[in-house]
Amino acid sequence: MPLLPPLADDDMSPEARAVLDDIRATRRTDYVNDIWRVLANDPRQLRLTWENVKKVMVPGALDPLTKELVYIAVSVANACGYCIHTHTASARDKGMTDGMLNELMEVVTLATQTNRLAIGYQVELDARYRRR
Amino acid sequence: MPLLPPLADDDMSPEARAVLDDIRATRRTDYVNDIWRVLANDPRQLRLTWENVKKVMVPGALDPLTKELVYIAVSVANACGYCIHTHTASARDKGMTDGMLNELMEVVTLATQTNRLAIGYQVELDARYRRR
Amino acid sequence: MPLLPPLADDDMSPEARAVLDDIRATRRTDYVNDIWRVLANDPRQLRLTWENVKKVMVPGALDPLTKELVYIAVSVANACGYCIHTHTASARDKGMTDGMLNELMEVVTLATQTNRLAIGYQVELDARYRRR
Amino acid sequence: MPLLPPLADDDMSPEARAVLDDIRATRRTDYVNDIWRVLANDPRQLRLTWENVKKVMVPGALDPLTKELVYIAVSVANACGYCIHTHTASARDKGMTDGMLNELMEVVTLATQTNRLAIGYQVELDARYRRR
Amino acid sequence: MPLLPPLADDDMSPEARAVLDDIRATRRTDYVNDIWRVLANDPRQLRLTWENVKKVMVPGALDPLTKELVYIAVSVANACGYCIHTHTASARDKGMTDGMLNELMEVVTLATQTNRLAIGYQVELDARYRRR
Amino acid sequence: MPLLPPLADDDMSPEARAVLDDIRATRRTDYVNDIWRVLANDPRQLRLTWENVKKVMVPGALDPLTKELVYIAVSVANACGYCIHTHTASARDKGMTDGMLNELMEVVTLATQTNRLAIGYQVELDARYRRR
Repeated sequence: MPLLPPLADDDMSPEARAVLDDIRATRRTDYVNDIWRVLANDPRQLRLTWENVKKVMVPGALDPLTKELVYIAVSVANACGYCIHTHTASARDKGMTDGMLNELMEVVTLATQTNRLAIGYQVELDARYRRR
Repeated sequence: MPLLPPLADDDMSPEARAVLDDIRATRRTDYVNDIWRVLANDPRQLRLTWENVKKVMVPGALDPLTKELVYIAVSVANACGYCIHTHTASARDKGMTDGMLNELMEVVTLATQTNRLAIGYQVELDARYRRR
Repeated sequence: MPLLPPLADDDMSPEARAVLDDIRATRRTDYVNDIWRVLANDPRQLRLTWENVKKVMVPGALDPLTKELVYIAVSVANACGYCIHTHTASARDKGMTDGMLNELMEVVTLATQTNRLAIGYQVELDARYRRR
Repeated sequence: MPLLPPLADDDMSPEARAVLDDIRATRRTDYVNDIWRVLANDPRQLRLTWENVKKVMVPGALDPLTKELVYIAVSVANACGYCIHTHTASARDKGMTDGMLNELMEVVTLATQTNRLAIGYQVELDARYRRR
Repeated sequence: MPLLPPLADDDMSPEARAVLDDIRATRRTDYVNDIWRVLANDPRQLRLTWENVKKVMVPGALDPLTKELVYIAVSVANACGYCIHTHTASARDKGMTDGMLNELMEVVTLATQTNRLAIGYQVELDARYRRR
Repeated sequence: MPLLPPLADDDMSPEARAVLDDIRATRRTDYVNDIWRVLANDPRQLRLTWENVKKVMVPGALDPLTKELVYIAVSVANACGYCIHTHTASARDKGMTDGMLNELMEVVTLATQTNRLAIGYQVELDARYRRR
C-alpha cells in the first residue's frame, strides 16, 4: 500500500515512459523496479532521480561494485528495507559474494558502534585533525 | 568537554594501558586517537571495541580501503563528525584520493535520496525480491 | 502485533474513554485511529499526547494544511510508516492533492540530500549566519 | 575544518564557476554559501545538486515559503545545523516570522513524539488505511 | 547562535516567566537551563514541554534515576549533545556514578549494534513473538 | 525474507554451533532467536556479538532489568521492530510490568521531544556544563 500506485507503462505520461525506457535500455533488462513505477506519478522527480543514478553509479574513481556496497551500507544505516533488498540484488549481480556481504555488515556494525561511542561520550576532535 | 576525560597513559589502568600498547603496535604509530583515551575510562568497553576493530578491519573478502570507505559512509549517515574526520584520515593513509572521496559522497547522497523516496512513498518490495 | 493491544471503548479506563470521546467530538467523526487505542493502555500518555495535538494542530501563524505537510515530512524523515499513512489521509482531507504530495516528497528528498552533503563534508557555518 | 576547502571563485574549475554564476544570477545576490564552495571540489555533484534545487524550490503546487518550512523541518529531523541556520535565513527572507518558526518547531516536535510512540508500541496500520 | 535568543527573566512574557518560576520551585534551584530560556520565545511550547517533564520524570513504576538513564540513552541515539550534557549532569545529581555511566554506554552501544544487524540482514520476527 | 537464511543447527559450521550451544547454556533455554541463526552465516560476527552480549548484559553497576529497559529505549530510537519485540519479551521475563513499559515509552517520547527542540532551535550548551 504505497501512497501512490506503481503505474503500468500504459498508465504513465510519455515523459515518465521515456525514463522507464531509458532504464530498460541502460540496464539491459525488461524488468523495472516498483520504486520507479511509483515515482512515475511525479515525472520530474522520476527524471531527476534517474539522471542522478545514471551519473553517479558508473565506473569512476570507485568501481561499480564498491559503489553498490556503499549504497547498501547507507540503506542499512537509514533502515530502508526496500533499498537493502534491491541493492543487495544489484550488488550480487555485480559479483558480491555472501562473504563480502557478511564483511560489509561487520563494518557497518562496527562503524555504528564507534559512531555511538564518540557521540555518547561527546569526544572532541583531536587537535591534529583540526588542521587541514 | 567529553563526559569523561581522555586519559594519559599514566592515568589509566594496566588493562587499558595494554590495549593502547596493542593499538600502537598494530598501527605502527605512537599516536592514539582521543576516543581510545576516553574509552580507557571503561577498560571493558575499550577492549571489546578494539578487539572488534582488529578482527573486522583486516583484509578479507573486502580490502581495507573499501572497508574504510564503508566506515566513512556509515559515519556520514549517522552524522558522527569525530568519526568522519578520523576515518577520512585513515582512508587517505590507505590511498583514498579527493576524487574517491567525492564519488563516495555522491553515492552516500544518492542512496540517502532514494532511501527517503522509498520510505516516503512507502513503496512495497517487488514480489521478485521476496523469494529467496 | 503491537506491544500492548488496541483497547475497545469498553475495555479502557474512564479517563482514557473521556479522551477518546473528546477526539471524536473534536474531529467530528466516529472513527478513532488505533494509535489512540494503544495509548489508552497509558491514560496519562494518551491525555498528554492528545492535549498536545489539540493545542498545536489548530490554525495559527501556520494553517492546518501546512502543518499536516510538515507532519508528513517529519514522519518520512523518521521512517514512521504508520504516521506517513495516517497523516497523508489527514492532509488529503484538508485539501492536499497528489501534485502537492509529490512536491512535498521532492522537497523532503532535496533537503535530505543537502543535509547529508553538509554533514558529509563537515561544512562549517558561514560567518554571516553566526551573528544574530 | 570541512573535509575539503571552500573554494574561492578563482580556484575552482570553469564548470564549477559557471554553477556559482548561475546561483548568483538566480538568487540575485553576490553571496554564495560555503556549502556550494565546498561542493565546487566536485563539479558534478555541485551541478546535480544545484539543478535539483532550481527545479524543486520554485513555486508550484506548493509555494516557496511552504517549501522552506518543510526544508527546515527535515533539517531539524536530520540534525543538520548548517542547513537549519541557512534555511531559516532563507525562510525569513521569504516572510517567515518568529511566530511561524515557533509553530513550525511545535509541529516538528509533536510529529517526532507521535512517530516515536507509533514505532515504540509497534502500532499496526488500521485496516482502513491499507486499502487504496 | 541559537535561532532565537535565550531570554532573561525580564524579557519574557508573564506566562513564560510563570513557567520558569515553577521550574525553579520544583527543582529547588535558582539556575534554569538555556533551553527553557530559548523556549520562552514560544510560551505555549514552553508550558507544554515543562508540563510533560513534570508529569513524566517523577517517581512511578520506574525510579527517577532509571528515567534519567533512559533519557541519556535516547539523547545519545538521537545525537543531541545539549541533552547528553545536561541530563548526564541531572543523572549525576541523582546518584549516577562513572561506573553506571560506562555501563549505560555499553548497553547503548550493544543495542545499536544488534539493531543494525537485525535491520541490515532484514531478520524477520520469530513466530513466537508474533502472538500476543 | 532476510538477506541470508536463518540456519538450522545442522546447517551451520561447528564454530557457529558452539556459539548457539553457549547461548542455550547461558540462557537456560532450548530456544534461540532467529537473529542468531541468521548471524550463523558469519561465525565471526556471531561470536563477536554474543561475546559482547555476554559481557555487557550481566549484573554490574546497573541491574539486568535496567539494562533491558535501556536496550528497548535505544531500539525504539533506532526503529528496530525486531529488537523492540524480542527485548520487550526479555524485559518481561526479568520483571517488567505494563506500567513500567508505559513509563519507559513516556520517557523515550519526552526525551525525543526535547532532543528535537534543542537541535531545532540550535540551543548552545550553557557555560556551566562546558567546564569539567
